[in-house]
Parts: sequence; structure tokens; C-alpha cells
Amino acid sequence: MTRREYDEWLNEAASLARALRYPITPDMVNDSAGIVFGEDQYAAFENGLWSREAYELMVIFESLNEPAVDGLPTGGAQHAEYSGLCDKLMIVHPGKFCPPHFHQRKTESYEVVLGEMEVFYDPEPVAVGDEPPLAFRPMPVGDAWPEGVALAAGREDSYARLTSYVRLRAGDPKFVMHRKHLHAFRCPADADTPLVVREVSTYSHEPTEHAHDKPAPLPSWAGVHDNAFVAPAANTGRLTTAIR
Amino acid sequence: MTRREYDEWLNEAASLARALRYPITPDMVNDSAGIVFGEDQYAAFENGLWSREAYELMVIFESLNEPAVDGLPTGGAQHAEYSGLCDKLMIVHPGKFCPPHFHQRKTESYEVVLGEMEVFYDPEPVAVGDEPPLAFRPMPVGDAWPEGVALAAGREDSYARLTSYVRLRAGDPKFVMHRKHLHAFRCPADADTPLVVREVSTYSHEPTEHAHDKPAPLPSWAGVHDNAFVAPAANTGRLTTAIR
Amino acid sequence: MTRREYDEWLNEAASLARALRYPITPDMVNDSAGIVFGEDQYAAFENGLWSREAYELMVIFESLNEPAVDGLPTGGAQHAEYSGLCDKLMIVHPGKFCPPHFHQRKTESYEVVLGEMEVFYDPEPVAVGDEPPLAFRPMPVGDAWPEGVALAAGREDSYARLTSYVRLRAGDPKFVMHRKHLHAFRCPADADTPLVVREVSTYSHEPTEHAHDKPAPLPSWAGVHDNAFVAPAANTGRLTTAIR
Amino acid sequence: MTRREYDEWLNEAASLARALRYPITPDMVNDSAGIVFGEDQYAAFENGLWSREAYELMVIFESLNEPAVDGLPTGGAQHAEYSGLCDKLMIVHPGKFCPPHFHQRKTESYEVVLGEMEVFYDPEPVAVGDEPPLAFRPMPVGDAWPEGVALAAGREDSYARLTSYVRLRAGDPKFVMHRKHLHAFRCPADADTPLVVREVSTYSHEPTEHAHDKPAPLPSWAGVHDNAFVAPAANTGRLTTAIR
Repeated sequence: MTRREYDEWLNEAASLARALRYPITPDMVNDSAGIVFGEDQYAAFENGLWSREAYELMVIFESLNEPAVDGLPTGGAQHAEYSGLCDKLMIVHPGKFCPPHFHQRKTESYEVVLGEMEVFYDPEPVAVGDEPPLAFRPMPVGDAWPEGVALAAGREDSYARLTSYVRLRAGDPKFVMHRKHLHAFRCPADADTPLVVREVSTYSHEPTEHAHDKPAPLPSWAGVHDNAFVAPAANTGRLTTAIR
Repeated sequence: MTRREYDEWLNEAASLARALRYPITPDMVNDSAGIVFGEDQYAAFENGLWSREAYELMVIFESLNEPAVDGLPTGGAQHAEYSGLCDKLMIVHPGKFCPPHFHQRKTESYEVVLGEMEVFYDPEPVAVGDEPPLAFRPMPVGDAWPEGVALAAGREDSYARLTSYVRLRAGDPKFVMHRKHLHAFRCPADADTPLVVREVSTYSHEPTEHAHDKPAPLPSWAGVHDNAFVAPAANTGRLTTAIR
Repeated sequence: MTRREYDEWLNEAASLARALRYPITPDMVNDSAGIVFGEDQYAAFENGLWSREAYELMVIFESLNEPAVDGLPTGGAQHAEYSGLCDKLMIVHPGKFCPPHFHQRKTESYEVVLGEMEVFYDPEPVAVGDEPPLAFRPMPVGDAWPEGVALAAGREDSYARLTSYVRLRAGDPKFVMHRKHLHAFRCPADADTPLVVREVSTYSHEPTEHAHDKPAPLPSWAGVHDNAFVAPAANTGRLTTAIR
Repeated sequence: MTRREYDEWLNEAASLARALRYPITPDMVNDSAGIVFGEDQYAAFENGLWSREAYELMVIFESLNEPAVDGLPTGGAQHAEYSGLCDKLMIVHPGKFCPPHFHQRKTESYEVVLGEMEVFYDPEPVAVGDEPPLAFRPMPVGDAWPEGVALAAGREDSYARLTSYVRLRAGDPKFVMHRKHLHAFRCPADADTPLVVREVSTYSHEPTEHAHDKPAPLPSWAGVHDNAFVAPAANTGRLTTAIR
């Protein structure tokens, strides 16, 4: 991806975000905001963002990532990494995906701002450790996938466990994705605008290049990476973007 | 307040929220959404919402109040009440206030959607218990109050400790209000629209009439009320609205 | 209608217009902007704007009424009153109507901004003078009326010739109402927001109280009133609003 | 300009228009909507739309071009070409221009929807024929140009007579540009979004490729081209776009 391609992608996305009144500050439009999930996904730029081909890439504008550590009792420090507040606007072009992954710590919610969002997920949580986690309102079992969802070439297997499907629209109730659940989403390939989604979640532990020099709220948080992508190549892509 | 006055207030506010694309579902427009902070504040309806007089009343549309208990390790239960995700749209008419209060558990952030927001707060946290709480990025000391801020009659004393002031506008960075800090806010009295603010916060422990029959995510959360208003009358107003 | 009722109606409507980015200047929020179509329609305020009852009243915010006389060749003066540019935002509460009328000179177009618009019209033009007017793309014959459209009591007869119906939504192509066609419209009674419509039209010849001291672009335009309402009482209501 | 470059330009612009609620139908996103004003201006695509360099190119989405001939008295036909209704959304990238031109017949008005609009114009009308045209509210003399407005290379002379300047922002009153006045406009080179302007005007006589097979409302209108650009090369660019 060339610098020109990257800048056009980000500048158009930031303009769309501003038109939709998302609070974009200049610092939010940086070289970690456009995400290509692995080296093979840069091929998306051969035909460009509007080819409607299946690739894994997206833009994230993060307006808040607050650890919410201040004011905690001392005893709350141990599990504070499951808490905090993050607010992001995510922009995905037609046919493109945020690839399958889960977070051990982060619980998310989605609010569609423009377009429609196709969510694919595993209604059962990933087991982490021996003990079963707490359960209050488990994920619902969603619908079966519709026909004709084109996946990124070579990445098909990574979607195998995401058997549940839901389609979200502007004005719908917030949709909660509990921590430890595998999930992915895309913008429908025939959409006439990019999908724009606001994600309100607990803290995002993402040691991106852009964030690498920021102090950790608690010593135990240093270097924590809470994104576990199914496709190994996707993991590397989340943290650094290769711009020629 | 008559039923007609209440319904006009709520229906106009919900229309404004929808125009601003906030995801309003019918269930969110209920008899706990319009809040009058104490019996004496119903006098606001003698001259109506556009009198620009100082009273303490507001609308809150809550689109999300997710405890984020699912997926927690068992050990995380004890301090989970400091976590979770809440998303609200707050609508305040010119001259009106959200009165001074603090939350022991809830950390908040503000995003102005329409109009301008005058925030008044105490840069020092309220002491709760003997142990000092954790600190990472403390509240900044804000500006001094501007001239001419009219307070609700008889409630002036409740603002005494809120010596810091900040004015927020659409497009500004999110403003974080840490838990345990006294705060209040208003819509400027000379505004030409109500103030509309999105608040993203940790879980709201508010046993309102509307929420009274909902199950508690954890047994220890039952009946927790995390709003501590300075004026005793304001506390009662938060949970029930008297509609004739 | 009391001053308080009027001001609340207008201030809420102007706030909605601003939220939808319509260019409202303070001069546009005046005592001719809220329109009650005849003395009997003030009864709408007994139960208020959200009663969903059928009455004829609406708000019009006019951002442009440009005669477009400047730059015309002299010979163009004679028919210039059929030309010009007007841009209005019209706000109609659930169940309320803009009543049946036609314009000899004014051609209109509608763009729904919020909610849905039910248009009732006569696909045949009213005859004015002996000569048939020019025709290029006549009005289409619309659908039959749906069931259950409640009309204002005592005004039912005025809708008799408006046999065509069309329902317009945000994003639809502009709908053109040619001059000399009887038309009316309403906001559906079960809507959750007021209907908000942008009308782009030729010049509005409306000698309202607010406009009474403005100079006429051409001498022949002085006092021209181009609104012909079917119900005689509606005509008077258009030009002056009785506020106690 | 390649097909990919054109489609990305148009699709991003249409998405922005939709986010701003402009009523875009698929037919409006066509090969006449993106305009490059002359062969030399295709050089803009060497560094792309976000280079902030001065070139003359823009997007126009036209939602209405209504001749308003229906319902006219026969005598009105002669000057009807000065009338009618057109509604367009114009999208201009940072540093880019709509080049100097005038319309003999078309009167325009501007409403900034996003960003800021720098308008350059001649406060005196162009003489057409011997007779002075009608005058009611002549164009005001604007401000002097600010420092540092970069013009398209080789096109500087075409701006010589546009000595007046005004800067328009969202929420400003509509700005009227009378027919027969030379005018141009740009998006500031340092803007963070494209400029988005709604133009409400009388009928646009533009025999673009997209419109070439549409019937003329009146026989005398066939082939009328009402855009007179100062730079000869700009005239040709308005009507056809060269996409490889």
C-alpha cells in the first residue's frame, strides 16, 4: 500500500466520520488507524477499496481508551484489566472484513451508524484456564449464515467456529459481544456506503505502533495484547501497518 | 408536572435524539427517562422548559447498561461493580442543570453532540473508606467559573465544592470524569437548542422505578444505588418521577 | 394558544431543524413561522401537539425566498412571478396536516428529512383563466388513499378532490408538485417523530405579518397572495397567528 | 483518470452525501457526476485528490432539475428558461476549485453542509445584449481576497475579474449568486474534509453526456448550454469526463 493509497483511505474515512459527527481529533488519524490484517491482505489494494472483493482490512478511529483505574479501591487492581472504557468508530468498505478473533478481557457493544453490519460469532465462549467464567446473560444463538458470503481467499478456515449470524442496522438496540467469544464482521459486498459502526467496549489492550510509548495504567498491563486472531497472519497485522 | 407536559418533554427529546441518530427504542422512552431532581424542582413547569430559569431537571435515554459480568474469572466478581458499560444520551434545556453528585463506582466520559456543555466539578476525589484509591491520570484542575451562572434557588450551597469549570463543544476530545469526583453540568441559559450529550461510562447502578423488576447480575449488586447527590432532595428525584 | 405554548412549539421545532443541519438564523424563528390554519384549529392546543389528533397546523422555517428578478431581461418581468427560489423546512406533528390548497404560480418539490410524508393531491390542475396551461411532464396519478386517515373535524369536504396519494420517505427521489394542483399532506398519526420536509420551490407569494414591510421585487407583486386554501378559514390562518 | 480512480472518487463522495442525508439515488452516481474542467486538469490525479494542490475538479450530485414549465400560462414560455428548480450537492476536495464562469439564465444559492466555502465573484454583472437587465437587490461587494489562495497553474488569468470574496460556513444564511455574475469557489487547501455545498438554483441548462437523450421541456431549450466558463478548456470539461 502506498502512502497515497493509505492517506486517501484515511482521509475519506475521517471525513465520513466527521459528517456523522464522530469526535475526530487530528491525533486519531494516524498510521495505526488503517488496519490490514496480514501481508497477504495488502493485495486488496490491487483493485482498490471499492472492488467489493473479500479482504480483511478496516479503519478504527479511537476517541477514548480510558483504563478507569483512578478511584478504584486497591483490591480492584487485580481484575481492572477486564474493565475500563473504549469508544471507537470502525469503517469497513463493501465486502471487507474484520477477521475472526476474541478478547479474553474485552466486552464490546455495537451501534450501526451507517450501512448494515453482518456479524459472525461463536455463541460458546473460548475456554481460558480451568475454571468456568461467570455467566449472567449468555450470548444468544444467532441465525444461520445467509447464502453467498465471500470470505478472504485462504482464510476460510478461520471462520469455521463462527456459526452464528446476525445482521444489524442503524437504530437497532445495541448488540453486546461478551468477552471470550470468537467474532468477525463485514460490510455487505453490495452496500452503497462503507459500514460505519460505533463500538463501546471495555479497555482495548492493543500495543499498536501508535500507542507504544504510552505509560501503562498498572504495571501488570504493560505489553498485554488482548486480541487473539484465529489466522496467525491477522495478529501481526493488527499492530503495524506497512505503508510504502 | 402533568402527563401532557411530561409526554411533550419526552417526545420532543426523543425526536431530537432520533434526528441525531441516537439508537432510541420505544422501551427507552419511559416514565423514568425524564428526571426532576426533587419536589421543589417541579416548579420549573410553571413557566416551562424554555423559560431559561435555573432548575435541576433533565432527560436520560439509556441505550446500554451492560454489567460485563459474563466471561469474568470468578475472582473478578468482587470488584465487578466498578466495571461494565453504559451508554446514555442526556438532554438538558437552556438554563437547566444536572445537579451536584458523585459516583463511588462509576467513571464517565462526555461527548457533546449538540450545543455546549458547562461542567462544574471538584478536582479532588471524595474520600470513601480509609484507604486512598488508585491514581493514574488524576482529574485536571479546570478553569474558574465564568460570571453569571444562575443556580437553582435554594440549591446554591450544593455547588460549593465544585470549583473547577470546563466548557465542552461538539468535536472536542472526550472528557473523562473519574469516579468519586463531585460534578454537575448545565446547558447555557442563552442556548438556542437543548444541550445533547452522549455519556459513555461504566455500569449505572440506579434502582429506578423503570428498572425495579430487573434481575441483578451478581447478588451483591441488588439495591446498590451509586448516585450520591449533595442536595438530599435531589437523591429522591433521581429514582422516581411524579407525573399527575 | 398561549405565548408559552407557541414558544415551546417553535423552540423545539427549531432545535430539531438545527440537529438536522438546516440553516436556521434567529430571524427565521418568528411569529409567522408557526401556522394554525383558522380559528377552529387552535383547539389543537387543548390536548397539545402530541395528542395525535387531526388538526391543521405546522411550522415553516424559510431560509430563502429569492425572487430571482435580478439579471432578467426586461421582457421577463411579466411572468417572473412564476419563477424565483424558495427553500423551507416544514415540521408537522403526528396526525397534523398542511390543509388542501393550490398555488397558481408556485411549483414545489419535497424531500423528506425525518419521518414519513403522506401526500394527498389532485392529479388534474385547477383551471385558471380560459387558456389551458403548458404541459410537459404532468403529475402522475397516485395511489388510492389508505384506510384510516383521520381528517380535521369539519374540514373533511375540503379533501374531496385530492384523490391521489403517495407516501414519501427519506432518501426517496424529490417529488414535484406542479403549480395549480390541489394538495395537502400530513405526518402519520402513529409516527414517533414529527415529519420534517424540505421544500424547494419557486417564489412564495405570502403576505404574512412577518413579511408585511418588505419591498416588492416588482410593482405588480405587491400584495399577491398565491395560496388558495379550499377551506375559507384556512386562508386567514396562513397569514397571521393568534398568540395570547 | 482511470476507471478505478473515478469510481473511488464518486463512491466516496456519494457515501459522504448519504451520511449527510442528501437524497442520492443510484442514477445520480454516473459518469457525468465527476467533473474535470479540461484536459490539463487531469494532472490532478498524478498525486491524487488529497494532495491539496490547486486543480479545477469537483463532484455534482443532482437530485432535481425541474423545468417548472407545467402549469405556466402560454405567454410564460418565452422566458421560462430563466426559471425552474435545480437542487445539487457539490463536493470539492481541499485546494480544488469550481472554475470561473457565469450563467446568463441561472440564479443560484449556496448552503454549506460540511467544511467552509471560499467564493470569488464579480459584483458587477456581465452585459448580455444591449438592454440593462432588471435589478432589485444587486450583489453586495464582498471582501478582498485573503493571502495565499493558490490557483490552478495556467488558469490564473481567468480569475482576474472575480475581485470579491466571501467565506461561507455551515449555518450561515443562504448566499445568493445572481445570474450573469462571474463566480468560482474552492475548498480551503488546509481543510480536513471536502467542502460539501447544497446549491438550490433555477434550472440548469447543461447538455451533459448523461442528459443527452432527455427530451427538452420546450423546443427552444434544445441544446441550450448556460455555462460560460472563462477558460475555454473548462467549458469542454463540464460536459464530458474522460475515464480510461
